[in-house]
Amino acid sequence: MNYAIGIDIGGTNTKLGVVDEKGTVIKRHEFKTTDYDGFATYMNGLEKAVTFLTSNCDGECMGIGIGAPNGNYYKGTIDYAPNLPFGLCAPIVDSLKLALGYKHIYLSNDANAAALGEKIYGGGRNLDHFIVITLGTGLGSGIIIDGKLLLGADGFAGELGHVCAVVNGRVCGCGKCGCLETYASATGIKRTYLEMVAKYNGNSSIANCSWNDLDAKVIEDAAKAGDIAAKQTYDITGNILGRCLADFIHFSRPSTIFLFGGPVKSGDLLLKPTFASMERHLMPVFRGKVKLLPSELPESDAAILGASAMVWSALEQDDKVL
Amino acid sequence: MNYAIGIDIGGTNTKLGVVDEKGTVIKRHEFKTTDYDGFATYMNGLEKAVTFLTSNCDGECMGIGIGAPNGNYYKGTIDYAPNLPFGLCAPIVDSLKLALGYKHIYLSNDANAAALGEKIYGGGRNLDHFIVITLGTGLGSGIIIDGKLLLGADGFAGELGHVCAVVNGRVCGCGKCGCLETYASATGIKRTYLEMVAKYNGNSSIANCSWNDLDAKVIEDAAKAGDIAAKQTYDITGNILGRCLADFIHFSRPSTIFLFGGPVKSGDLLLKPTFASMERHLMPVFRGKVKLLPSELPESDAAILGASAMVWSALEQDDKVL
Repeated sequence: MNYAIGIDIGGTNTKLGVVDEKGTVIKRHEFKTTDYDGFATYMNGLEKAVTFLTSNCDGECMGIGIGAPNGNYYKGTIDYAPNLPFGLCAPIVDSLKLALGYKHIYLSNDANAAALGEKIYGGGRNLDHFIVITLGTGLGSGIIIDGKLLLGADGFAGELGHVCAVVNGRVCGCGKCGCLETYASATGIKRTYLEMVAKYNGNSSIANCSWNDLDAKVIEDAAKAGDIAAKQTYDITGNILGRCLADFIHFSRPSTIFLFGGPVKSGDLLLKPTFASMERHLMPVFRGKVKLLPSELPESDAAILGASAMVWSALEQDDKVL
Repeated sequence: MNYAIGIDIGGTNTKLGVVDEKGTVIKRHEFKTTDYDGFATYMNGLEKAVTFLTSNCDGECMGIGIGAPNGNYYKGTIDYAPNLPFGLCAPIVDSLKLALGYKHIYLSNDANAAALGEKIYGGGRNLDHFIVITLGTGLGSGIIIDGKLLLGADGFAGELGHVCAVVNGRVCGCGKCGCLETYASATGIKRTYLEMVAKYNGNSSIANCSWNDLDAKVIEDAAKAGDIAAKQTYDITGNILGRCLADFIHFSRPSTIFLFGGPVKSGDLLLKPTFASMERHLMPVFRGKVKLLPSELPESDAAILGASAMVWSALEQDDKVL
């Protein structure tokens, strides 16, 4: 059986998996990124982990896909990643090729990998035009156009978390104000909820929770139990997210937008106001034509699946050219 | 010499031209769209015009490109065009193929044609990722990704005139409120100027002009002569346009954005505040990387050039596949 290796590099953990063409994770391995203090020692650990993972694997390894923050597809380098001890520019693809002898090694950021995961294994299997939005600490995005990942002039297309959602709005980690991810993300939900507690003068069943105790799930549970401030938090989040989704549709006219991540598991609480706002903010001739769906990738394996999908996707594109 | 025919269908006039590969318009013809009251009679006139235009043309006609409002690339039909007497769905490509025997006939909307014109003959000749924004009565856009026109799931991608520039903003002809084209267009400039006259209590050198007497050029001249209300009009227009351009860059990360149309001829009056706002609204890591330039197409022939460019572009894509 042919397989691909998916590697998800996070600030805390590095996760690896052996994945078949159907998206079954056959073998897993994990180690702490924080155990390493520089790129050279980290690469040593990563090479050992890949060798360990592929020992006793039947079949042929078709390549490695790596999802990492600030992963540059064109250069194969991880650039300026604030939570990784890699310095300004870590040539991870070339280093791995040299150390392990694999020819096909691909790198991209995590949200782009998620979009390819959706294309190869998920709800986007038969779609040529769709967008994946990942809602977590921030908001990530991957855009599929004509069946391929949109990379842009330098590999950094699809930074939809940083479009201007509110003029002169909330302070964002990127250095700007009003970015979409400061409203539509797990963190954005917390920020909106605190504004609602202020608006309703503390009249909320979870008003005793501090900023540190709060997360989107606590607010979700309160909303589902009837808490007005919490419910309105999700309405506001959906309203802002839906308006921006409409603008993304005006840009690339996808057939579907997939939402991924913790806040999406709240179901209709977020999806209903988001879809209503999206439709309301679309040109009338566009209404009723674009689907808004939860991602079909299982959350626990999504990062590994997304990373491994880069390999199958590259092979598919090669097939088309030949 | 091989040539392509470019046809620009407008509500008032239909313009045709014979164009060579370098973008020289060798022969022109024009007739009134308004002389016809339905699709069948119009097609009769159009066929005669094409036959007249190509009589005595040396060389081979490689195909016809048509730019028209609401032109559907995939279906080859003009759908629901409010200013054309064509009804719900006019099958212009099939009708022309049948009548004239040409094999290669392409249709798209005018702004998409403009983007292909820039790609084939203009400043986008060596670029794979750029956006063309046309500022006229409204705001049109054509998006080039990986060297190809972005069409999306149904041929209607690139409706950037209708992204939400101002929440609950100005009434737009599309049925929504706050669309970018209600601010950034020749009409938008007029609307902003009237707000400025109100703001400054009539203190403007052209305050005696009525809505009907005003156009963007009158306001441009006043601004250049030092009129504060007129100057601020262009600053506000550039500020809003630049913010939205930044969001388009967050989406597709083009190397260049080209601006086309009357208001662009005001030069720095519009370009300077637009570029400053674009940079300010970009993620810091994106700043200083994307060019904002006036289109290189001559305005008088741009529509014919853009339409004819569809033919060369399609031939180029065919070459790549073979």
